[in-house]
Parts: sequence; structure tokens; C-alpha cells
Amino acid sequence: MLNRIDHVGIACADLEAKIAFYESTFGLAVVSIEVNEEQGVREAMLHVADGPTGSSYVQLLQPLRPDTPVGRFLARRGEGIHHVGYGVADITAALAEIGSRGVRLIDERPRHGSLGASIAFLHPADIGGVLTELVQVPPKSHDLNYISEKNGITSA
Amino acid sequence: MLNRIDHVGIACADLEAKIAFYESTFGLAVVSIEVNEEQGVREAMLHVADGPTGSSYVQLLQPLRPDTPVGRFLARRGEGIHHVGYGVADITAALAEIGSRGVRLIDERPRHGSLGASIAFLHPADIGGVLTELVQVPPKSHDLNYISEKNGITSA
Repeated sequence: MLNRIDHVGIACADLEAKIAFYESTFGLAVVSIEVNEEQGVREAMLHVADGPTGSSYVQLLQPLRPDTPVGRFLARRGEGIHHVGYGVADITAALAEIGSRGVRLIDERPRHGSLGASIAFLHPADIGGVLTELVQVPPKSHDLNYISEKNGITSA
Repeated sequence: MLNRIDHVGIACADLEAKIAFYESTFGLAVVSIEVNEEQGVREAMLHVADGPTGSSYVQLLQPLRPDTPVGRFLARRGEGIHHVGYGVADITAALAEIGSRGVRLIDERPRHGSLGASIAFLHPADIGGVLTELVQVPPKSHDLNYISEKNGITSA
């Protein structure tokens, strides 16, 4: 069912500083910076690798306000790994299957994620403390030229 | 420099229970179970995907004793994501480059990791709270038949 590690989501206090760090230290390149009002975050996707089912990213997350999930995470635990996102081919089918096995779904239906993906979160209390996200990429979304163009960003 | 997300390392209290959960809920298959005395863990690698530079895994970690890094992590924070491991082509070169940029190296030289890999940890305090591991796979290590055979394990 899970077909790749789509991203590791990392909570940070200063998005620009953390982007600069990942670029200079690890040689990663930003492919998008987006604001997701619904989730209360500004987030950057840094490209790590391409694979047969899609790409993998480091996702850096800065809360828009303290009273958001990532804002509360930062206040409670400080900067660090916030969640892991796995690729799936059919997110609606995956949610039905996972839900039928007793895992609570934070999102009963998919919503909008980074880079045009459909995403849904699963409850960490049912997955050994791991906030787990499912990601179904839209057609063409692992074409980096397309993404960069769409977002007006050129890879560093 | 980073060429894939090699694995997400997840700390757990009961390795067998967590393996069964990831198998039944997400359809992942175990490719190895190893004891790493040096790190004080028993760990399972569950295969997620193959890519051009190697495979990606969920790594489940159970401490051998409370007085180990993963044992202390469990006592302090409970079960959850412990670290992220990235693939590199040349771990010695990567460590030199990362060290030269001011990131402290927990391991100045590579040591033995899962599936015969050479691994090294970087200091989380210099990477925004993220315990970060570099992984250089040995030749042939992303041949799953080879791994399963070597470990006497058949994929579920």
C-alpha cells in the first residue's frame, strides 16, 4: 500500500534560516514554498530524490501562529521531526483500508497538501506515537520542471 | 549529497507487536531483524520502496536496555520518530564536508548499521533538533533476495 517515503516533515521556528541550512549543509534544493492556511503553516519542499512512484522531500514547516498544530508542537517539544508522509497510489482506497483496521483517521477525506497532492493524516496514538500522513501525488507532480515553473521557483 | 531518504527510525517498546502492526495495517514486509549491541537496539527493517540509489525502509527500534539512547528516548518522550537516515554515495566524503560546515559529528568515522550499511550520526542540536543519520549501502545491498537470504528471512 505504501509505495515510498514521500517526505519527512520537520517543524522549525525560522523557515528561511532552515532552508539556507539544508541548502548549504546537505546540498538540497527548494522546489516550492507554500502557505497552507488550513494547516496553519508556511512550508518548503526540498527535493531529495526521484523514484518510480514519485519524489521524496524534506518538508520544513513553520507555524503561522502559536495556536496551530505545528505551533503547539514547537512550544511543547521544540524543533524536530513532526511527521512522516508516505506515498500511496489511491488515497481514498488507502484511508478506507487503514480505517477498517482500527486506525483513527484525522482526515476522513483527503485534503490539499504540498505540490498539489491529496493528503490525509492518521492518528499518531494508533501508530505508536508517529503522526503519519498519506500522500497521493497529482498527475505530473514529480516533473520538477513543471513544479518549479508552476511556483515561479528555480532550483538552486 | 543526500541521494534518498533511506529510512525513518521509529522507537518502540515491543518490536514484534510493531512489526505485526506495520505488516497488517500498511502491507510492509520485513527484510531483516538484527541486534546492534553497539547501539543497544534490536531493529527491524521493513521495505517501503526501491530507487536508483538504494531502497527505503521503516526502521523499528526496540532498546535492549533502558540505559541506551533509544531506551532514554522512550523514557523521555514515549514511542515515536527517533531519527531520519539519508543515503549518501560516499559517507567519508560526506562526513568531511558536513563537519567542515560546523555540524558536530556524533560519529567521526562510519560504523556498522542495518543491512551491512556504513552509517554515521550527526548531532541533532546542530540540525534543528533532528537526529540525522547518513547511510552508505554496501554493494548489492538493495538486492532484496540477497538480503533476505543472508538473514534467513523470507518476506511476508
